[in-house]
Amino acid sequence: MIEVSHTQAESSIPVNLPLATPPIVIIGTGYAGYNLAQAIRERSPDANIVLFTTDDGSNYSKPGLSNAFARGLDAKGLITETLLQVEARLNVRIYGHCQITHIDTQKKLVTSRYGEQTYSKLVLAQGAQPIQLSFQGDASGDVMSVNNLLDYHHFREAIADKKHITVIGNGLIGCEFANDLCANGYKVSVVGLSDWPMDRLIPKDIGEQLQANLSEIGTDWYLNTSVERIERKGQGYLLTLTNGETLTTDFIMSAVGLKARTQLAQSAGIDCNLGIIVNGGLRTSVPDVYAIGDCAEIQGQVLPYIAPINYGIRALANCLLAKPTMAQYPLMPVMVKTPVLPLTLLTPPIHTQGHWQVTKEGNGIRALYLVDDKVMGFALAGNVTSERQQWLDRVAENRSSSVS
Amino acid sequence: MIEVSHTQAESSIPVNLPLATPPIVIIGTGYAGYNLAQAIRERSPDANIVLFTTDDGSNYSKPGLSNAFARGLDAKGLITETLLQVEARLNVRIYGHCQITHIDTQKKLVTSRYGEQTYSKLVLAQGAQPIQLSFQGDASGDVMSVNNLLDYHHFREAIADKKHITVIGNGLIGCEFANDLCANGYKVSVVGLSDWPMDRLIPKDIGEQLQANLSEIGTDWYLNTSVERIERKGQGYLLTLTNGETLTTDFIMSAVGLKARTQLAQSAGIDCNLGIIVNGGLRTSVPDVYAIGDCAEIQGQVLPYIAPINYGIRALANCLLAKPTMAQYPLMPVMVKTPVLPLTLLTPPIHTQGHWQVTKEGNGIRALYLVDDKVMGFALAGNVTSERQQWLDRVAENRSSSVS
Repeated sequence: MIEVSHTQAESSIPVNLPLATPPIVIIGTGYAGYNLAQAIRERSPDANIVLFTTDDGSNYSKPGLSNAFARGLDAKGLITETLLQVEARLNVRIYGHCQITHIDTQKKLVTSRYGEQTYSKLVLAQGAQPIQLSFQGDASGDVMSVNNLLDYHHFREAIADKKHITVIGNGLIGCEFANDLCANGYKVSVVGLSDWPMDRLIPKDIGEQLQANLSEIGTDWYLNTSVERIERKGQGYLLTLTNGETLTTDFIMSAVGLKARTQLAQSAGIDCNLGIIVNGGLRTSVPDVYAIGDCAEIQGQVLPYIAPINYGIRALANCLLAKPTMAQYPLMPVMVKTPVLPLTLLTPPIHTQGHWQVTKEGNGIRALYLVDDKVMGFALAGNVTSERQQWLDRVAENRSSSVS
Repeated sequence: MIEVSHTQAESSIPVNLPLATPPIVIIGTGYAGYNLAQAIRERSPDANIVLFTTDDGSNYSKPGLSNAFARGLDAKGLITETLLQVEARLNVRIYGHCQITHIDTQKKLVTSRYGEQTYSKLVLAQGAQPIQLSFQGDASGDVMSVNNLLDYHHFREAIADKKHITVIGNGLIGCEFANDLCANGYKVSVVGLSDWPMDRLIPKDIGEQLQANLSEIGTDWYLNTSVERIERKGQGYLLTLTNGETLTTDFIMSAVGLKARTQLAQSAGIDCNLGIIVNGGLRTSVPDVYAIGDCAEIQGQVLPYIAPINYGIRALANCLLAKPTMAQYPLMPVMVKTPVLPLTLLTPPIHTQGHWQVTKEGNGIRALYLVDDKVMGFALAGNVTSERQQWLDRVAENRSSSVS
């Protein structure tokens, strides 16, 4: 376009709008962000709600990434709603592909390439990002983490013509992926630091059973070691482990844990530790700024599970609508998506000293975590997972009596 | 995040909204898109207006890219409003970083990664993209076109530590950039196909004066030739021209013309030629779909100028609000941003046969385009640009009598 001499652009007559209360602004449209928006809307038909996301705002369930094969879904199939559908259903405003670069907690506004947005209340729901280990070797950058829908899309494209996938990390997510991939025809190698899979959540007997069951469907294990070097070899890779062993593989994924996204909050002077520190009402150290989900640290713990988010959302939706409410967290057992050995876990309270008591029953294994002979946690494997409610009730009773 | 057993996500209670008329949807937030939205809003406080853009929706004047140095502005300085400011001022909805991938003209909806958006009326305001020439040589991909704000940002970053810039193209935009760069300390070489700069718009005498004036401030010229090969040489490039000459340079930009963006319209079955074909009411061949700006072809012509957009907007805003109006285009002279030789041009009507009559007056040159001894266009250079209105009136009189 070229400027012309005798005609002017139409004058910029400002269209005056009534000055409205700034909206509730939510940064992040993952499980926490979208479900919080819904909870606010259910409690208030009028609340002005604005969300920002760095991705395209598709609504999907992140836990579904590690068992999508079993459910016959690809990345697109995991999407339950588009950004436009969420906007219409919840009557909210969602800004896609938008990184918030700054929070001004004094002026109460957030900044991005789209400009400045004021807020009445701000909620950080930015989630967590994969921990990236560093390796030696010419292909050290080829390791993929799968932490969101776009990652999963690339992952599925990348492995479409592959046969052998190596998973670095023998924790919960690594085991879920191993199960899902093997059950769908892939050969999987798991490399992990500990003696048995999921050692931080389950005792040795259950870990070894899980290991055996996954071995049966095509997982092999490199435990008590880690990856030192990754080099290209033919169409695939040669891994050298710290114990000197080597293996060749077609593709390498990393699942060694998550760290809360705290950078934006930290740069705004909000107190952070493992995550963004919040109190029982999910408030941060700065007025009118809250945090929820995988980015938040509650009572010293980051809880990257769905249940605490759900309980948090109920309290936070009320807080944001000026009805101060403390979040109540009941006992929240975790169900692991390893169909080869169904697992239901209730981790003991942090900083407790106790021991596992293990009994086997048919194809099931019952592990009770005892502190002074009282059951304070459990791991149920196989057919004894049906005893979940009974042990939950027992732990609830024991924990309340130990507090009183 | 990990799924848990005994608690469910909050149920997805749909929040029912009244069914509204689908909005007016505008694809593109350049000069045409944003000024059309403003014209609609001025005529209708209630119209529901939605815009989509592939960039971050910053409001800026594209003609300002080729004289930003002279105005002391960088890319950021050219931004007059952010996306959020435009949304607030015009009470519209703008979706950033969003490529529309499909138009369903039957169901009247557009599709993108954000989902499906229905429309009552659709306006294509997608602009034009730079023509990319292909060259031989190992650095043939290093040629930059500057067609939008993001390009300009990269351009300014890239030339910050450079001294000698080569501009491929001796047309209006190439000359404007040469003037702006030389006036700010760069050495510029212009490579062009014709005998004198801007040969399609101005006669030889004015062209040679423009060439001389730009030479004085540091432009040298490689005319009647073109670039054949681009190779890396040291920190810069070696260009080999088709006439055998060579030159070395630090940076290469291309300004050889624009082509209307028609791909989306074509794939939707909308008639296109040089641009998206529209009638006097800016309608395309498909009901309820319109086109305006650099992507549109009106009466066989693509008019990549501000003035036709302004006149088109007035008509189109009425059409979209159900007041059918044909666009009226008065004579629209073009002012070229070459301060070394101010130029005001009125191109003759297409398909007329005539000749230039040139007279010099002081430092000015007056070129009148005569058809049967009647002035039907002009090019005024230097101090005779002050005669603009007088010759405009004369041409208006002559053209109306030649039509009647």
